[in-house]
Amino acid sequence: MADLIDLRSDTVTRPTAGMREAMATAEVGDDVYGEDPTVAALEAEVATLFGHEAALFAPTGSMANQIALQLVVPVGDELLCDADAHVVTYEIGAAAAYGGISSRTWPAVGAEVDPDLVAAMVRPDGYFAVPTRAIAVEQTHNRGGGGVIPLPTLRRLREVADEHGLALHCDGARIWHAHVADGVPLHEYGRLFDTLSVCLSKGLGAPIGSLVVGSAEKVARARFVRKRMGGGMRQVGVLAAAGRYALAHHVERLAEDHARAARLAEAVAPFGVLAGPVRTNIVPLDLTKHPLDAKQFAAAARAEGVLVSVLGPRTARLVTHLDLTDDAITRATESLTHTLRA
Amino acid sequence: MADLIDLRSDTVTRPTAGMREAMATAEVGDDVYGEDPTVAALEAEVATLFGHEAALFAPTGSMANQIALQLVVPVGDELLCDADAHVVTYEIGAAAAYGGISSRTWPAVGAEVDPDLVAAMVRPDGYFAVPTRAIAVEQTHNRGGGGVIPLPTLRRLREVADEHGLALHCDGARIWHAHVADGVPLHEYGRLFDTLSVCLSKGLGAPIGSLVVGSAEKVARARFVRKRMGGGMRQVGVLAAAGRYALAHHVERLAEDHARAARLAEAVAPFGVLAGPVRTNIVPLDLTKHPLDAKQFAAAARAEGVLVSVLGPRTARLVTHLDLTDDAITRATESLTHTLRA
Amino acid sequence: MADLIDLRSDTVTRPTAGMREAMATAEVGDDVYGEDPTVAALEAEVATLFGHEAALFAPTGSMANQIALQLVVPVGDELLCDADAHVVTYEIGAAAAYGGISSRTWPAVGAEVDPDLVAAMVRPDGYFAVPTRAIAVEQTHNRGGGGVIPLPTLRRLREVADEHGLALHCDGARIWHAHVADGVPLHEYGRLFDTLSVCLSKGLGAPIGSLVVGSAEKVARARFVRKRMGGGMRQVGVLAAAGRYALAHHVERLAEDHARAARLAEAVAPFGVLAGPVRTNIVPLDLTKHPLDAKQFAAAARAEGVLVSVLGPRTARLVTHLDLTDDAITRATESLTHTLRA
Amino acid sequence: MADLIDLRSDTVTRPTAGMREAMATAEVGDDVYGEDPTVAALEAEVATLFGHEAALFAPTGSMANQIALQLVVPVGDELLCDADAHVVTYEIGAAAAYGGISSRTWPAVGAEVDPDLVAAMVRPDGYFAVPTRAIAVEQTHNRGGGGVIPLPTLRRLREVADEHGLALHCDGARIWHAHVADGVPLHEYGRLFDTLSVCLSKGLGAPIGSLVVGSAEKVARARFVRKRMGGGMRQVGVLAAAGRYALAHHVERLAEDHARAARLAEAVAPFGVLAGPVRTNIVPLDLTKHPLDAKQFAAAARAEGVLVSVLGPRTARLVTHLDLTDDAITRATESLTHTLRA
Repeated sequence: MADLIDLRSDTVTRPTAGMREAMATAEVGDDVYGEDPTVAALEAEVATLFGHEAALFAPTGSMANQIALQLVVPVGDELLCDADAHVVTYEIGAAAAYGGISSRTWPAVGAEVDPDLVAAMVRPDGYFAVPTRAIAVEQTHNRGGGGVIPLPTLRRLREVADEHGLALHCDGARIWHAHVADGVPLHEYGRLFDTLSVCLSKGLGAPIGSLVVGSAEKVARARFVRKRMGGGMRQVGVLAAAGRYALAHHVERLAEDHARAARLAEAVAPFGVLAGPVRTNIVPLDLTKHPLDAKQFAAAARAEGVLVSVLGPRTARLVTHLDLTDDAITRATESLTHTLRA
Repeated sequence: MADLIDLRSDTVTRPTAGMREAMATAEVGDDVYGEDPTVAALEAEVATLFGHEAALFAPTGSMANQIALQLVVPVGDELLCDADAHVVTYEIGAAAAYGGISSRTWPAVGAEVDPDLVAAMVRPDGYFAVPTRAIAVEQTHNRGGGGVIPLPTLRRLREVADEHGLALHCDGARIWHAHVADGVPLHEYGRLFDTLSVCLSKGLGAPIGSLVVGSAEKVARARFVRKRMGGGMRQVGVLAAAGRYALAHHVERLAEDHARAARLAEAVAPFGVLAGPVRTNIVPLDLTKHPLDAKQFAAAARAEGVLVSVLGPRTARLVTHLDLTDDAITRATESLTHTLRA
Repeated sequence: MADLIDLRSDTVTRPTAGMREAMATAEVGDDVYGEDPTVAALEAEVATLFGHEAALFAPTGSMANQIALQLVVPVGDELLCDADAHVVTYEIGAAAAYGGISSRTWPAVGAEVDPDLVAAMVRPDGYFAVPTRAIAVEQTHNRGGGGVIPLPTLRRLREVADEHGLALHCDGARIWHAHVADGVPLHEYGRLFDTLSVCLSKGLGAPIGSLVVGSAEKVARARFVRKRMGGGMRQVGVLAAAGRYALAHHVERLAEDHARAARLAEAVAPFGVLAGPVRTNIVPLDLTKHPLDAKQFAAAARAEGVLVSVLGPRTARLVTHLDLTDDAITRATESLTHTLRA
Repeated sequence: MADLIDLRSDTVTRPTAGMREAMATAEVGDDVYGEDPTVAALEAEVATLFGHEAALFAPTGSMANQIALQLVVPVGDELLCDADAHVVTYEIGAAAAYGGISSRTWPAVGAEVDPDLVAAMVRPDGYFAVPTRAIAVEQTHNRGGGGVIPLPTLRRLREVADEHGLALHCDGARIWHAHVADGVPLHEYGRLFDTLSVCLSKGLGAPIGSLVVGSAEKVARARFVRKRMGGGMRQVGVLAAAGRYALAHHVERLAEDHARAARLAEAVAPFGVLAGPVRTNIVPLDLTKHPLDAKQFAAAARAEGVLVSVLGPRTARLVTHLDLTDDAITRATESLTHTLRA
């Protein structure tokens, strides 16, 4: 992949020299025994950022989400989320398979959420129907083109949750991007949710790691569930050090990724393939009206030196990230223009 | 409840004298050993009706549905259905809790199904996303006001299923009503589905019992799953006899229930509370614009001698069934008119 | 099977004329709505018999056990029982598959239970090891040759449970036989357990039905779990009537079944195949030292007009029950003697 | 913990300078996309070591075991293992909770396995009883005092598995120790099992990581299950590099750990607390006849500068590992002698 410009995902970034250095010198201990000082520091830092009492390291965003969902939805009870949510799409059915969590979904339109529609889906907690226990949203929304849910919408959703006694979970794998795009402090987001998952290895560039964020009581339980899920690792400090470095150096710079995504969007827009407004680091493509379908487009772009993601028969995705330069984006716009014109 | 006219559900019917007689004289054996002749006869009869190789008795419609879903969706994989489907509403999360089945739902609008929308929801079977394995529809649709899915829609849905290699399940608890309302032979429905559940204790008036219908191979597996679910009963003939009686005497008479539901609908329509067209034995009510909410309406109707079901804050339901007479319907229309006018 | 003497199981009994009459005239209602007076009467009766607050009808003993286990063991936590227990053998893995219940087992030796050995197996409730939550015993013990656990042993086991904060469940499918064999009142047994399942369709001869017994709070939860398991049936009174009849007429007569089992045991003992003492209605056979293995023995006995159960390569079982007469036992002893001698 | 001699577990080791260097310079890529060259190299290396086609990195030994068990035991079916096995003790019920796997256990006596006893526990694959699908053993055995199952026993167990069509899984977290203690080549062990889990972060001293080993087909499926479990990490090379270093440098040196464990055993033996022979790096202690119980002993040892593990009210454990020196062992023997004498 060395010479290719990789726009598939922000998960492909490699640890920077500074991060490697942090990892190489990290103080570590056995985290199953609660003795790794670096992961403890990271957990405290992230908890504070989001205005919560505690946080817990997990090997992946999927596990962080699934741990959180198991905390807020008892086996057999119900989660509401949109039909394109990561938690019911890319986590391979884990919520049902491992958490016994029943899900009903509302139609996904970008990152939009209609709190009244969600409220109307809630089942009463009773004997005849499955009890609804939680609502999950994704901020920013991956399949929703990196869209940002506006703060007022989230506040209204919190009210809906409170009215019905539901928990509210945020899949915040890219919540950093929302923070940078909308200028909302992370703790403003944090206080609206019972649980959040946040990811160090996507936009922030760390090699591995996510965190579950919530109350001290929930995180204590999360530690138990993490062990049951097989996520109780030992000298975690070697990874947490990369995470701490990422938090210190790679949050505010996401503005660059957003600007670069905007440049890519501008380049492809004339071809009628832009699937929605570009707010953050994701450029959603809809090839319904283009001669190339998604697989053909990806193959053609690759021949031009650019890797893109195929999300469906006619949908594709470009993602900007830490390992790209302005120059790479310039070359990518040229290649993509060439690909789409052909 | 003796003097009340019970419009809550068609599940409330009591076995008739003929049914009681059939139960009292049924030949029986131990069905766990496969030795009950009456249940074997019933199973063969129902399989034939739906043009399938085999059928299996189950104690409830919920278990029949859940057995079928466990046959067609491997643990962790995905089922698509509408958000008001019985299988994700009134079966208390069993699909996820016991089958590990992940579900995504499309918005329910009566009994309408849009095969293209369903097709667009299918996830490819792969490594990144949960594999979609089955589609479930409900015929007639309980929360969809007893609506009937037209045969051409079902045929198109079968094509969608085939294009994507999916199984198609029918929750046919009230498929008898669709058969009577649309004049479609049961085997015409049957051949479109990989599995069906059909119920003897709703419209047909038997006290207990549903069946899973499908291929010989699927039903053999269903027998195993039924035992694991705790549904492997012994001298089942005492119940199957009631079911055979119901099949012989209570299918075509559903036309009466439909006519009576139409009379009820006509009576309440002037009050602006009818939630949709009435095709079968269910009259859906929407009290959004009425001074009474659903609970108040139910209480007021009860005071007038009529029992109705509350489905939501502003939604209610009337159901006609075997234990009602034309006279009871006349009295019910008077009571409901009085209640709604007040 | 008409002319064969069926010693396979006490599940094969057919309802008597009195039972049929009770079923045919039973007052019924919709039990999902809690409106069936006959099942309510049965549930109250059984609760009282065992000195508990409440009871709940279930379609099978397997479901009754599984509902109870789901009440006392949270998903992922641990149940201790013996390795031949019905709950981990004949319920097809339901405890793990549907309840997520982890099980560790002690070696089964007849119906013997060593409370100290059980105590030593308990894991502390903590972060590192699976928390043990409940102990289950079987009274009488099916694979344990119908053996009876002595009251003092059960009392000591109750102490062990209390010392470790564990629940104690009794699979009492044949607890009636223990009551008759040891003369222990049912409420003496009942008070020692948090939950019990008891069966109407084995020794007592009803066609269908078991009950979960426990506190009012547990049984309320059991009603919810039963619906999730697909066990929420409608006009259950038709079955409950048979159960009430069985309780009134078929408990104390089990002494006859025990006496007949003793006669069978006496007949086969000289051939060195008796696997243990016969206390109740089960005669366990061990054919290790006999020329015939279990399948050969069963085939040969069948040729002589007697049906027996095969439990393993060299183990078989004879069971006495309501549908047998002294004369049938006489003929069976002759046939079995002939079979074993050959 | 700086000044304490840590004999709690071999999981507490910190990465060595060489390992850190390897991690800092590792070539990496996105392993979810299958593009991390270092983890690919590690997986190939481990597969070859055990004579299997493929291997897969997992964040923990628990996840590696659970992935393997989900491969060989379908939901609801049965696993046989001993009652002290890590898979049913320290993995917090994950096999049942997430895999729906039913377990029956044989009594644990050190690391002993009686293949005939195991064979007698197998249930036939049928309709009446839960189908047994796999046997799991632990080599070396953690709660079994680091005992080694002799190769002939494993061979006989393989025959039992084959006779009954069962899979055989090895929890080989410390299989390296067995290899060193008994001089059995790893591939000799490997060929006897359908699946193995092996751990890099216990005896071998890597900070994080285990692998599932098996056929190419099984490992392809394992990759899918790993993602569902939340174990699909990204730039895994940073961890795999430590693992490769550990394999190259830390396997044969385990002989030192064994020798040091023998020294510890010799020191405590005179106090009558040694629970069994010491074959590898674990010293099992039984304090039943000592004035101190396990918690008191641990506290007293700590006051003397030595950390030990408490496994039960009267059982404790000493473990030697990479971070200990001969001098530390000398001091530990003095401290422990002092503690036990007091």
